[in-house]
Amino acid sequence: MATRTQSVQEICEQAKRAARDLAALDTATKDAALAAIADAIESRSAEILEANQADSEDGRAANLDAAFLDKLALNDQRIAQMAAGVRDIIALPDPVGEELDSRTLYNGLELRKVRSPLGVVAIVYEARPNVTVDAAALAIKSGNAVVLRGSSAAERSNAVLARIVAEAGEGAGLPEGSVSLIGSGDRADLTELVQQEGLVDLVIPRGGEALKEAIKKSAKVPVIYAAAGNCHVYIDASADPEMAKRVAFNAKVQRPGVCNASETLLVHCDAAPAVLPALLNQLKDAGVELRTDARTRSLVGAHGDGLLDATEEDWATEYLGMKMAVKTVDSLEEAIEHVNRYGTGHSEAIVTSDDGAAHEFSEKVDAACIYVNASTRFTDGGEFGMGAEMGNSTQKLHARGPIGLRELTTFKYLIHGDGQIRE
Amino acid sequence: MATRTQSVQEICEQAKRAARDLAALDTATKDAALAAIADAIESRSAEILEANQADSEDGRAANLDAAFLDKLALNDQRIAQMAAGVRDIIALPDPVGEELDSRTLYNGLELRKVRSPLGVVAIVYEARPNVTVDAAALAIKSGNAVVLRGSSAAERSNAVLARIVAEAGEGAGLPEGSVSLIGSGDRADLTELVQQEGLVDLVIPRGGEALKEAIKKSAKVPVIYAAAGNCHVYIDASADPEMAKRVAFNAKVQRPGVCNASETLLVHCDAAPAVLPALLNQLKDAGVELRTDARTRSLVGAHGDGLLDATEEDWATEYLGMKMAVKTVDSLEEAIEHVNRYGTGHSEAIVTSDDGAAHEFSEKVDAACIYVNASTRFTDGGEFGMGAEMGNSTQKLHARGPIGLRELTTFKYLIHGDGQIRE
Repeated sequence: MATRTQSVQEICEQAKRAARDLAALDTATKDAALAAIADAIESRSAEILEANQADSEDGRAANLDAAFLDKLALNDQRIAQMAAGVRDIIALPDPVGEELDSRTLYNGLELRKVRSPLGVVAIVYEARPNVTVDAAALAIKSGNAVVLRGSSAAERSNAVLARIVAEAGEGAGLPEGSVSLIGSGDRADLTELVQQEGLVDLVIPRGGEALKEAIKKSAKVPVIYAAAGNCHVYIDASADPEMAKRVAFNAKVQRPGVCNASETLLVHCDAAPAVLPALLNQLKDAGVELRTDARTRSLVGAHGDGLLDATEEDWATEYLGMKMAVKTVDSLEEAIEHVNRYGTGHSEAIVTSDDGAAHEFSEKVDAACIYVNASTRFTDGGEFGMGAEMGNSTQKLHARGPIGLRELTTFKYLIHGDGQIRE
Repeated sequence: MATRTQSVQEICEQAKRAARDLAALDTATKDAALAAIADAIESRSAEILEANQADSEDGRAANLDAAFLDKLALNDQRIAQMAAGVRDIIALPDPVGEELDSRTLYNGLELRKVRSPLGVVAIVYEARPNVTVDAAALAIKSGNAVVLRGSSAAERSNAVLARIVAEAGEGAGLPEGSVSLIGSGDRADLTELVQQEGLVDLVIPRGGEALKEAIKKSAKVPVIYAAAGNCHVYIDASADPEMAKRVAFNAKVQRPGVCNASETLLVHCDAAPAVLPALLNQLKDAGVELRTDARTRSLVGAHGDGLLDATEEDWATEYLGMKMAVKTVDSLEEAIEHVNRYGTGHSEAIVTSDDGAAHEFSEKVDAACIYVNASTRFTDGGEFGMGAEMGNSTQKLHARGPIGLRELTTFKYLIHGDGQIRE
C-alpha cells in the first residue's frame, strides 16, 4: 500500500500502473481477492476497533456531535456488515468484458463494443469508515485501482482498513498499488488529487456542499458528484387515498436525512379532500413541520391551523430533516411543471390509478428515478439489485441514479480485421 | 425559429420547453419531420446557394485560404448529400425508449432502465455548413432540442439552413424552438451559451484548440470535446509484411488531415527488416516526411539516408498532415507503453498474426478504438454503422469514440409499484 512518504502524484502513478494489470485480471482472481479482504476484515477486527477507538476518543474530545460520532463508530456488528458487503459484491456479475454491441461491418470488420474499467477511481468521503471498504471493493470488482481520501476524523480507522484491504488483496493476486489511501489533513493534497490529468480517470466526492465547491473550483479530471435530492411525491386526482397517504408518509418520514427522502408533497385539488386532512395530521403527529400554500390550508379546514406559509425558498430546499412543503395543484401539468422547476432530478413519485397520467409523468419529468405508486426511498444501489453504491448521481451524462459497478466502467470498441484499409 | 432579437438565455429557455415535448414524440412523427427537412433542403436549394455564394464571396475578399473556402462552399451535389444524410438518419433505429435493463425487485417493484433524450444539446462548430443539418437531424431523431452556433464565415449559409430545417420540421409536427441558431459573431454569446445551467444539457464543440480552450475556461454545463487523435500503428513481430505495409500506409496517407489518421509507426525489431525498407520508401514516395529513431535508420540502411531524428515532441504530436514518426521497439510491451504514454486514446492499431499479442494489445492499450489488422481510419460513426456523428470523443465517461444518436441520450429508471414503501 502507498506510504505517507509518497506524494499524491506518486501514489496516482503507482495506481495507474496497477490499473493496467487490474484491467486484465479475470473474474476469479478479483473475486478471490475480495474474499480474502472480507476474511481479513473479520480476522483483524481487533486492529480496526483499536484504531477506531482512538478516532472516536479524539472526536469526543473535540466535541463532535453525537450523530457524527455515531457515523464514525465501528463495532463488531458493523465490521461484520462491512465484510458481508464485500461478499455481496463477489456475488454480482463482473461488468468488465460485457459485450454492449457487436456487428459485422460492410467490409467484413468485426466490431465489438466491450465494457472495460475506467482505470484509476478516486473517492473523497467523510466520516463513515465503511466507505473505505465499500469503495475499494466496488473498484476492485470493476477492475479499477482506487485512491481513497477519507476525513481526518476517521484517519486512523481508514488507515487500518485501507492497509488490511490492500494487504489482503495484494496477497491474493491484486497488483501492488491497487488500493491507496492519501492523507486527509491537507487540503492541498485534495487539490493535487483532482488535478492528476492522465492519471486519475474519475473522482467521486461523497460529502457536503463545501467539499463539492472546493472540488468544482480546482478539478481538472472528470468528477461525478454524489447528489442532492429535492424529491417530490405527487398525488394525482385518481390516486387511491390510502396508498397515497402511505407512500407520502414513508417518503418523508422513514429516513428524512437522506437524499431520496421527499421534501415537497404536491396534491391534485380533486384528491385533496380525501387525502390531505388525515395525511397532514399524520405528518404533524410524527413531528414533521409543514409549510403549505394558502389553498392547501383552506382545503383542510381546522387541520390547517398553525401551518406555516411555504415560500419560494421552501419549494427549492432539500430539508434533509423533518420538514415538508405542501402544495395543492390544479392539474398533472402543473405538478410536472413544479417538479421540473424545483426538483434536482433525483427521485420523483406519482401516486395514481390512471395509466395515462403515470405515463405522462414518467415521460415529462426530468429525473434519474421516477416512481409510479411507490416511495422515493427506494433509490439505492442495494434496493435496485446493483449491490453497494458510491452514491447517487443526478447528472445526465455517464451515470444517472445509483453509482454501482457498471458506472465505474467505460467501454472500448474492439475491431478485428484481416487487413482492411479505407478506400 | 429563434430570432436575432432573442437573448441566448431566451433561446435556450425556448429550446428547453421544446425539449419536453420532443421527448414525448413518437418515432413516426420525428421521422416524418426529418423527411420534410430533407425534402425542403432540396426544394429550397436556390436560397441555400444564394446565401452560400454571399458567404463565399466575403471569404474570398477576406483572403481565407483555399482549403477553408472549399469546406465552406456548397453546390447542388453537396446539398443532395445533406438531404441524403438526413434520410440516412431516418433509417436508423430510434434510441429513445430503448430498454437497457429491466428487473422485478424482491418487493415486487418493476424496474426498467430506459433511454431518454438529454434535453437541449448545443453544437459549436466551424466552417462546414452541412454540420447545421447533420447536427439538427441527429438531435431531432434522438428527441433533443438543438441550439446551433456556427462560424461567422458561414453565417448566412447557416442561417438559411437552420431556418429551412426549423420551418420544415415545425411544419411536420416538431414543437417550436426545436432548432435554434445563435449568432456567431459575438464571443460573449458563446460564453453565455456554455453557462446555461439547467437549460443546456450538453455542449459539443467541434473545432480547433482555441475554441476548446475558450470553452474550458467558461463552461458550467457538461461538455464533450470532439477530440484530437495521436494515433499509432504497431507492427508486431508476427505481422504479415504485406498486410503491415498496406495498413500502415493507408492509416497515414489516405486522409492525413483527420483525427483518425496515424501519426506514429511502431515496428517490432523482428519485423523491421521485412517491412521497414519498402514501407519507408513508399511513404517517402507519397510525400510523407519521416522522423525516426536512430535504430530505425540503422535497420533500413540506405533507405534511411536523409531521414530526420524523431524528438520527444514528434512522439507527442498530432501532425494532421504528411509527416510520420517511426520507432523500432523490442517488444509488444514497449509498444503498448509507448502508445499509452503518447497516445490520446483515440484509435490504435496492431498488425499481428499472434492472437495472444492481439489480445494483450486490445486489453492493455487505453483507447476508444483498438484495431487488430485494420487501418485506424475506420473510426467514424458512418463506418461503424451508427449513421452521422457529432465527432469523436476520447473521454471515458458517457461517450467514447463516435458521438452518434445513442451518445445524445441519457436514461431514466422507471419504477412501477402498487404502493410499496420502504420498511
